[in-house]
Amino acid sequence: MSNCLVGQSGGPTVAINATLCGVIKAAKNAKQINKIYGAVNGIQGIFNDNLCDLNEIFVNEKDLELLKKTPSSYLGSCRYRLPKEFDKDYEQIFEYFKKHDIGYFFYIGGNDSMDTVHKVSLYAKYINFPINIIGIPKTIDNDLFGTDHTPGYGSAAKYVASTILEITHDSNVYNAPSVTIIEIMGRNAGWLTAASSLAGTGTLKTPHLIYLPEKPFSAEKFIEDIKVKQQENKRVIIAVSEGIKDYNGRYVCESMSSGATDIFGHKYMGGCGKVLENIVHESLKCKVRSIELNVMQRCASHIASLTDINESEYIGKEAVKAALNNETGKMMVLMRENSNSYSVKAENIDVSLSANKEKNVPDYMINNEGNYVTQSYIDYALPLIQGELKIDYINGIPHYINL
Amino acid sequence: MSNCLVGQSGGPTVAINATLCGVIKAAKNAKQINKIYGAVNGIQGIFNDNLCDLNEIFVNEKDLELLKKTPSSYLGSCRYRLPKEFDKDYEQIFEYFKKHDIGYFFYIGGNDSMDTVHKVSLYAKYINFPINIIGIPKTIDNDLFGTDHTPGYGSAAKYVASTILEITHDSNVYNAPSVTIIEIMGRNAGWLTAASSLAGTGTLKTPHLIYLPEKPFSAEKFIEDIKVKQQENKRVIIAVSEGIKDYNGRYVCESMSSGATDIFGHKYMGGCGKVLENIVHESLKCKVRSIELNVMQRCASHIASLTDINESEYIGKEAVKAALNNETGKMMVLMRENSNSYSVKAENIDVSLSANKEKNVPDYMINNEGNYVTQSYIDYALPLIQGELKIDYINGIPHYINL
Repeated sequence: MSNCLVGQSGGPTVAINATLCGVIKAAKNAKQINKIYGAVNGIQGIFNDNLCDLNEIFVNEKDLELLKKTPSSYLGSCRYRLPKEFDKDYEQIFEYFKKHDIGYFFYIGGNDSMDTVHKVSLYAKYINFPINIIGIPKTIDNDLFGTDHTPGYGSAAKYVASTILEITHDSNVYNAPSVTIIEIMGRNAGWLTAASSLAGTGTLKTPHLIYLPEKPFSAEKFIEDIKVKQQENKRVIIAVSEGIKDYNGRYVCESMSSGATDIFGHKYMGGCGKVLENIVHESLKCKVRSIELNVMQRCASHIASLTDINESEYIGKEAVKAALNNETGKMMVLMRENSNSYSVKAENIDVSLSANKEKNVPDYMINNEGNYVTQSYIDYALPLIQGELKIDYINGIPHYINL
Repeated sequence: MSNCLVGQSGGPTVAINATLCGVIKAAKNAKQINKIYGAVNGIQGIFNDNLCDLNEIFVNEKDLELLKKTPSSYLGSCRYRLPKEFDKDYEQIFEYFKKHDIGYFFYIGGNDSMDTVHKVSLYAKYINFPINIIGIPKTIDNDLFGTDHTPGYGSAAKYVASTILEITHDSNVYNAPSVTIIEIMGRNAGWLTAASSLAGTGTLKTPHLIYLPEKPFSAEKFIEDIKVKQQENKRVIIAVSEGIKDYNGRYVCESMSSGATDIFGHKYMGGCGKVLENIVHESLKCKVRSIELNVMQRCASHIASLTDINESEYIGKEAVKAALNNETGKMMVLMRENSNSYSVKAENIDVSLSANKEKNVPDYMINNEGNYVTQSYIDYALPLIQGELKIDYINGIPHYINL
């Protein structure tokens, strides 16, 4: 019997606490596990000797349910990259593991976190330390290799689709021609921007154009695309990834930040939405507005996907099972089962297969013109946004839990 | 027996269709009313001869319920200001009224729309035209004079409070000091920005600072305020109205747009959030982010206040009652009843008492330092965000109706 340690890392999502909830629930039920420690601010909780006792905090089921529905990382997060060489960082981590009798280590995060899992696992093997280390994926970016999709993506996708639908209703009120540009997160992978297409699966056809970072962006083509869409739509709605790049590989948003300064002489670091807004204003002289969905797309638990939240809890539980089954150096993945109706099964793969790789939107999910997704993407993504998480409200605002 | 005409005008809200729903329901039940026409794009529907037959469209109760829950203006909107002098615009309107046998005219909108109601009512009196004209208020800005609050405000306030709570969870994950600035709509009145305070009525104290346009803004004082808050909070959350002005009455957002240009040589028209982000970055050298809630604050029906939606429908019904009761040239208002529990009653006032006036946040609702609201504001606003509208989802996205 030994203790387990769980940490959260990287950018927050609305599903990362559901996974933590799954880990806690399964660890509580495991005879082989004694204490359940939470590392506050990820791996930094080890360096700063900042653990919390999750058995003590989560005594009853009700608080665990609240945790499951709470956005962002309950335990806090970090962006700390372990060095390549096995140095004192590693010694410190494993001394800490030894001191606290950690036999199981679960790390919930994205690409960088899987790098941590990979390195810590290698070191454990190197010093022959008895521990089971499992990475559990989460990211709104959906860019992790080896898994059908990542926990957190479905909820962000549901937020993006629902919000674009609502923005379209808003844009449609005026009679005058207008262009609305919605900038969506995703520096290198366009998965979340692609989710905008799900807004159009109802009665309102929206957005009209979608630009992903997977395809080079041309301002001239962009304006031509809008002109074509304007022939049939007075109000053109466009979803664009923050990470679109021109044919030279330069981020479109950098084209602005390099030039503009404010009255204080600071460089203006703007998003690509603002750049495109200016291009449209200049070229088409019509009403144009750019909207950044900003952090709301990753923290709006009040419109989370029930499918995503349930899968996120499930994968946390399965991670504990895998560790108890003596797996280590693994990343949990969700595999889509071949059946008529959508279902997934958790499995695990060697974390080295996923760490430091990025999964982009494949060509067959993007149309030939590079300005929309194909039905293949919609078929892939639609199951992920199904179901609504019912959150509790107290005094008119959402009821969440915090450390 | 004559026909009725209803139009929507000004910026959309999530409650304006609930009011339209109330008007349709009451008009359907009124023996004195025959056809129920909708003016497409407000008063411009008259000039463009663009009416729709709402009796025909809304045959069953289910579609009316869907209308009630749909964001933005179902009938479309306009921003058209009638001239001061009674000119051909007026002649055209009343010829149209005559031609279509309009005996009742309902106009749902904000300040400018009440100006239209006022002018059209005066002209009706001037030419002695038999018609009952009623204005029904809506605006997320809550700046209409004569009513306790405006339909649409409660839902926008609920969105703002809930979103700021979620953003705070998101900001709290990292250990490093940070400042998050959230820019909220309200050019001259700070009501909606004040609603950010409702985010702090739960377990998480947020935001830490609130700046309204009612008080002059000083960048120096702003930085001092943040320093004070940083002593107790690593992550400082700030809500700021887009309309804050300096001591010379100059909009803070203008201070930026006057200086910055992008690489295309365009003036950068940014929000005050971006300006403040730069000021903080320069002065405090800590991580800082600005977030614009943009149109989402006025179109997110999926998190509408049930109180607001129900009151909005109610005031629409009461407007029809008032018209049938031979009232004209009136604006409907919501009066808070003096009782232990919150309740409102619809009344009507002469529209001239409200048109072209602006109701600002009164001094007693703002603290002495001008950087937060008082308990009086919270007591006033909290009842308005109570209850959650249950919307339907189809295929994972909200189900709304469109013309």
